[in-house]
Amino acid sequence: MSNQRIDSLRKRLIELQIDVFLVSNYYNIFYLSDFKTLTENEREAWMLVTANDIYLFTDDRYIKSQSSIRQLADKAHKLKLLTPEKGLIRHLQEIFTEENIKTCGVEAGDLRLIEFQHFIKHIREARFIPTDRLIVKLREIKDDDEINKVKVACGIADQCLEEVIKTIKIGTTEKEIAFKIEFWLKQKNHDLAFYPIVAIDKNSALPHYDTRDGNNQAVENGSVVLIDFGAKYQNYLSDITRMIFIGNVNQEIINTYNKLLNSQEGTIKFLDTMRSSHNYFKEVDKFCRDKNEVQSLPNFSHSTGHGVGLEIHEYPKVSINSEDKIEPNQIITIEPGVYFEGKWGMRIEDTLLIKEEGVEVLTKLDKKSLIISNS
Amino acid sequence: MSNQRIDSLRKRLIELQIDVFLVSNYYNIFYLSDFKTLTENEREAWMLVTANDIYLFTDDRYIKSQSSIRQLADKAHKLKLLTPEKGLIRHLQEIFTEENIKTCGVEAGDLRLIEFQHFIKHIREARFIPTDRLIVKLREIKDDDEINKVKVACGIADQCLEEVIKTIKIGTTEKEIAFKIEFWLKQKNHDLAFYPIVAIDKNSALPHYDTRDGNNQAVENGSVVLIDFGAKYQNYLSDITRMIFIGNVNQEIINTYNKLLNSQEGTIKFLDTMRSSHNYFKEVDKFCRDKNEVQSLPNFSHSTGHGVGLEIHEYPKVSINSEDKIEPNQIITIEPGVYFEGKWGMRIEDTLLIKEEGVEVLTKLDKKSLIISNS
Repeated sequence: MSNQRIDSLRKRLIELQIDVFLVSNYYNIFYLSDFKTLTENEREAWMLVTANDIYLFTDDRYIKSQSSIRQLADKAHKLKLLTPEKGLIRHLQEIFTEENIKTCGVEAGDLRLIEFQHFIKHIREARFIPTDRLIVKLREIKDDDEINKVKVACGIADQCLEEVIKTIKIGTTEKEIAFKIEFWLKQKNHDLAFYPIVAIDKNSALPHYDTRDGNNQAVENGSVVLIDFGAKYQNYLSDITRMIFIGNVNQEIINTYNKLLNSQEGTIKFLDTMRSSHNYFKEVDKFCRDKNEVQSLPNFSHSTGHGVGLEIHEYPKVSINSEDKIEPNQIITIEPGVYFEGKWGMRIEDTLLIKEEGVEVLTKLDKKSLIISNS
Repeated sequence: MSNQRIDSLRKRLIELQIDVFLVSNYYNIFYLSDFKTLTENEREAWMLVTANDIYLFTDDRYIKSQSSIRQLADKAHKLKLLTPEKGLIRHLQEIFTEENIKTCGVEAGDLRLIEFQHFIKHIREARFIPTDRLIVKLREIKDDDEINKVKVACGIADQCLEEVIKTIKIGTTEKEIAFKIEFWLKQKNHDLAFYPIVAIDKNSALPHYDTRDGNNQAVENGSVVLIDFGAKYQNYLSDITRMIFIGNVNQEIINTYNKLLNSQEGTIKFLDTMRSSHNYFKEVDKFCRDKNEVQSLPNFSHSTGHGVGLEIHEYPKVSINSEDKIEPNQIITIEPGVYFEGKWGMRIEDTLLIKEEGVEVLTKLDKKSLIISNS
């Protein structure tokens, strides 16, 4: 599995005429090696891909961990120990000299400026070549293993939300709902993809409402409840948003919901027609906004969707500025919204798989029956 | 509160002869403005501190959120809207021209290489000056508000651990203990500082054991249980490690624990004697390792401690490579360990406040009574 990913990276290096590639990003290292450190942002590991070898640099807290060593040794990685006396720079100097390396690609979208400055100051053996989105573009196209994991993550989110929705009644608060979602997942040894956005009434009009810092609105008769969350299964994520309407809901709200659902489902159908001809996602974004407009719904300020995988926001981007093409085995969301400041808002979101022969909606929780009020 | 922080930053800019400073780091923006975005790593906001103004750049998902606007307007921040048509670069060009800005400091430890490349390519109005640890070094010295929040976070962690320990019995697993800690905190509307490390027997010998990915070892008669976790209270963190010994524990284990406790408490006392003369933390690190050595305990591969605040690993560093000085109002951990691969390991950790007149241990959960076995 990983070997194919490494092969794809090596092919890109040949195209770019780069000798070797230094991987700094936590998710990219995991994608290529199945190795991950405890923290995302503390640079506890680095990876160097050369024409013949894969080096993994980390400290002895990880190297001593038997399970990690076994995992990596199985894949013939060369482990290099980082110590206060011999850090990454000295290791790179050594390898570059031994293997006569002249150019080393780095991840310009991940590497910190100060790290780059240190490299070019201390390592004269090779030239460092900033590259943009090399591995994240490989990650855009999912293999079978990844697709299966996202499918399971979507199924878990569906089941979780279906069960949590049943417990919502008048008086239930935003934080209670978020807590129930989290508790449901973690009791089953799963995890959250991200902290749930649960936004009721006025709060639902804020696309980036933070439930943790909000006023913890409670459900009332006639309330609009937005729930945007995802599950994590074996490091892969899902993303779903559903609307729940409580008791005697204003007819205007129901009408708006039906129009938005029409936009969302229409966009998924449009994507299906676009898929075979390798069109661009920016056309999908435009279609979705136009679909809102012709139904007299206002535009929304966020993108129409995004890739999902190891991270919740990946490539491709489904937005007006996106330069990404529609390709088989991408996994994306489609999530139009409408927001009326000070009143209420709505968003409907599914995670989808783009296949050779069609688009498969992976989050399957019903979008119609949720309109039926429960109080 | 924030104004004093901004004043300190402006003082540093004058010393460095830099006109303005662009803040990119999520925590640093929060530290200076109380404004935070939903995600840490997606660059949803930037901040520019000039001699007279504070600009905050973000998109309309945040600007529309009434509570955020109110917060920022209260502090006389100038809000600038980021859109696909007018992004950060165009805003900076405009401000640099209007205010005749010639030099702009950036956070080299946070800014991505590609961001820096874009700035220098597109913005000719000013020169960008990479700076290192400007704001994180300010954050090293805590003010009263921060100290109070960390104290509360420590008290919460103490209480949580005291209650969770009571529920541990033969058969309880690592993940069950971690789950209980998490839900104890979240039910009370607090949060984890980081995902708990709960490591039993052989797993306790791995200083970076990941409970989520481990073999979920259960407690047996004679088990060694390591629990390393922290609480988050109003964005500020605590960090504590305690050892629990179950049933008929080997006398060698108890002896080792007493020696390690002697190292840990001796190091805290040593810190107290060092504090008044503005010594270096590397001396504290060395003292702690020597203290292990004279008691015939092996050395440990991690640092002796670290600063704690908005992030779990901050400045000052208490390690052999640290260049940080001991100063009043720093909050740090002291956490020596001993690890016997394939057998068991131990770590004892407290969060401490360095004061003018002494060192205050903020995590107060007993370190003696935990030796008393419960089965």
